[in-house]
Amino acid sequence: MKEQEVTSASFAVTARNRLKRRHDRGRYDHEAVYAVLDAGFLCHVAYVIDGQPYCTPTIHWREGDWLYWHGSSASRMLRNLKGGTPVCLTVSHLDGLVLARSGFNHSANYRSAICFGTARIIDDPDEKAKALRGVVDRFYPGRAAELRETHAQETKATMVIGMRIEEASAKVRAAGVGDDEEDYGHPVWAGVIPVSTVIGAAEPCPRLLPGMEQTASVASYRVGRRLDETLAEAQLLYEGDTEADELVA
Amino acid sequence: MKEQEVTSASFAVTARNRLKRRHDRGRYDHEAVYAVLDAGFLCHVAYVIDGQPYCTPTIHWREGDWLYWHGSSASRMLRNLKGGTPVCLTVSHLDGLVLARSGFNHSANYRSAICFGTARIIDDPDEKAKALRGVVDRFYPGRAAELRETHAQETKATMVIGMRIEEASAKVRAAGVGDDEEDYGHPVWAGVIPVSTVIGAAEPCPRLLPGMEQTASVASYRVGRRLDETLAEAQLLYEGDTEADELVA
Repeated sequence: MKEQEVTSASFAVTARNRLKRRHDRGRYDHEAVYAVLDAGFLCHVAYVIDGQPYCTPTIHWREGDWLYWHGSSASRMLRNLKGGTPVCLTVSHLDGLVLARSGFNHSANYRSAICFGTARIIDDPDEKAKALRGVVDRFYPGRAAELRETHAQETKATMVIGMRIEEASAKVRAAGVGDDEEDYGHPVWAGVIPVSTVIGAAEPCPRLLPGMEQTASVASYRVGRRLDETLAEAQLLYEGDTEADELVA
Repeated sequence: MKEQEVTSASFAVTARNRLKRRHDRGRYDHEAVYAVLDAGFLCHVAYVIDGQPYCTPTIHWREGDWLYWHGSSASRMLRNLKGGTPVCLTVSHLDGLVLARSGFNHSANYRSAICFGTARIIDDPDEKAKALRGVVDRFYPGRAAELRETHAQETKATMVIGMRIEEASAKVRAAGVGDDEEDYGHPVWAGVIPVSTVIGAAEPCPRLLPGMEQTASVASYRVGRRLDETLAEAQLLYEGDTEADELVA
């Protein structure tokens, strides 16, 4: 069992984010939480309307301890909630199927990060511009400058929801089969079947202009490469670019 | 835009499950919803405690229009809620990154199913036995019989949550780049980068007995195969086995 690491760069542990089960798999430090968030393209956002929970898959991006995503079905509700609404945003990666010698000990290897905060519509033009800075470049660093310029009308039509991560936890299982000692003699195959999300061969748009090659930010999404590693690398490059911009400015 | 298919085998469309955006991508029929559910190993469950939403990743399995999963942080709350609690269970698959010529038209290819119901603890012994029938065999059809028999104590210790799907919707984007007509002349690479979750080389437990080979249900998780296809196939085999059992019984 790994000693739980708590540094100054950790989220506070409260009744809301404290792990209810398998404490040994939990971490509350920024590094562990961000590693899971940054390796994911899709997240799931839970929110409540009139007591009814909703769980919406969407694309998220991160700037420091802020998370952003596009307008969801919560948008209309949020329009009327200037103070924002509590949400829980979760990113999960499945890493393996764990087949034990008893049904009870079957499991999965995974990484997940659960983040709590108060979501609100990012309406202020400066704040919105800042939030939208990463929407393309966080995934494909440098690509935004290569695109057709964004029209003011598009920025206006784009609903951006944001929240500061108030509390969070990460949970990881990365281990082999854990059978009961007396079961290892049971005659059945047991083991881990790893799974990973990988990149396939790019399908260029049929209307591509002649000679249009992928630039570095896109070319890093190479055939056969793991998506989680590629996304984590892109986030690091993006953060480096952002810091460089801020030094120049 | 595809004509929306509504057959008798469809979920009712209400304010809760009606798509708020991109109606053209939505389906409400059982077939479309089950296809997304059955191709996934992980789901995300949203529920509410004292107004606070939670979004928990977990493993789900399906029997007809019922969904089951293991006890989550909601368990303690559910213990005191005999009538159950409203939840939203979502399964999502990322199929591709869509890189357009403008930031605004960047997108993703995906399949998602959002299911609404009232979750409760499955406590009744017969109902629990029925719910647990699929917990191994739905993923690895026939494996349960090969395992060390489940102890009564384990069944007791296993918390099973279940819900009938009251309403649901599926949403799919499976398309190329959709740029504005005037942007196709913009000089930048555009296209789709497909992604898929695939199976890696099995890692046998180091304490495997000599000669223990994978049986068919596990061997179908072959290296390089797509996880979603393998899971969907397993569900079909499982349903076939279940029907055969019922005919015999």
